[in-house]
Amino acid sequence: MSAGKFAATPEPPYYAVIFSSLRHGADAGYGGTAERMMELAAQQPGYLGVESVRGQDGFGITVSYWRDEESIRNWKRDAEHAEARRRGRTEWYEHFELRVARVERAYAGPRTEREAGAA
Amino acid sequence: MSAGKFAATPEPPYYAVIFSSLRHGADAGYGGTAERMMELAAQQPGYLGVESVRGQDGFGITVSYWRDEESIRNWKRDAEHAEARRRGRTEWYEHFELRVARVERAYAGPRTEREAGAA
Repeated sequence: MSAGKFAATPEPPYYAVIFSSLRHGADAGYGGTAERMMELAAQQPGYLGVESVRGQDGFGITVSYWRDEESIRNWKRDAEHAEARRRGRTEWYEHFELRVARVERAYAGPRTEREAGAA
Repeated sequence: MSAGKFAATPEPPYYAVIFSSLRHGADAGYGGTAERMMELAAQQPGYLGVESVRGQDGFGITVSYWRDEESIRNWKRDAEHAEARRRGRTEWYEHFELRVARVERAYAGPRTEREAGAA
């Protein structure tokens, strides 16, 4: 059950695109497009996985993981993705913040502090 | 309304701690401690902000932002935070992934692609 929610990323370094957004109330085609974008992103070279959650108040965080910056740039250039972003800006999002970050270290749990070592 | 959900981060570079977690069902003191940790983190030197959301299925993402790695290390050494992490591992989380990343570029929206430029 947890397997589908967590991204199975490799050892760092790799990249993360942190997308925080507050949606307007109405769906206006959002659900279908969001699903399609998840599907399409997963087919891109350099895609490593995604983690996503949205609360009932409309605030959500989606983090997608990528091998390198080139993979992120290529995905940004995808025409269908560009159109979805345009609709996001004009129809779906009241506000969003997008941050591109280089993941430098990572660990998973629960493990005890001793097991986790200095990670 | 959106102001309280988004972290008002400065120009990059800065750091992000991406914490994805799946909680067990029962609260077992989680709510109070989570709130206290948010409050305590905000008092740490180098703290820049936090964004957090948890879905009804127990999966959540919390991203905290920090000036530098030293700030993250100092926060990790805080005794009350260490105790909360111990309880997280033993009582609250079925699984978690923690990733430390350096934010290299960022932009906010909605703005049109033209306004956003090459960001």
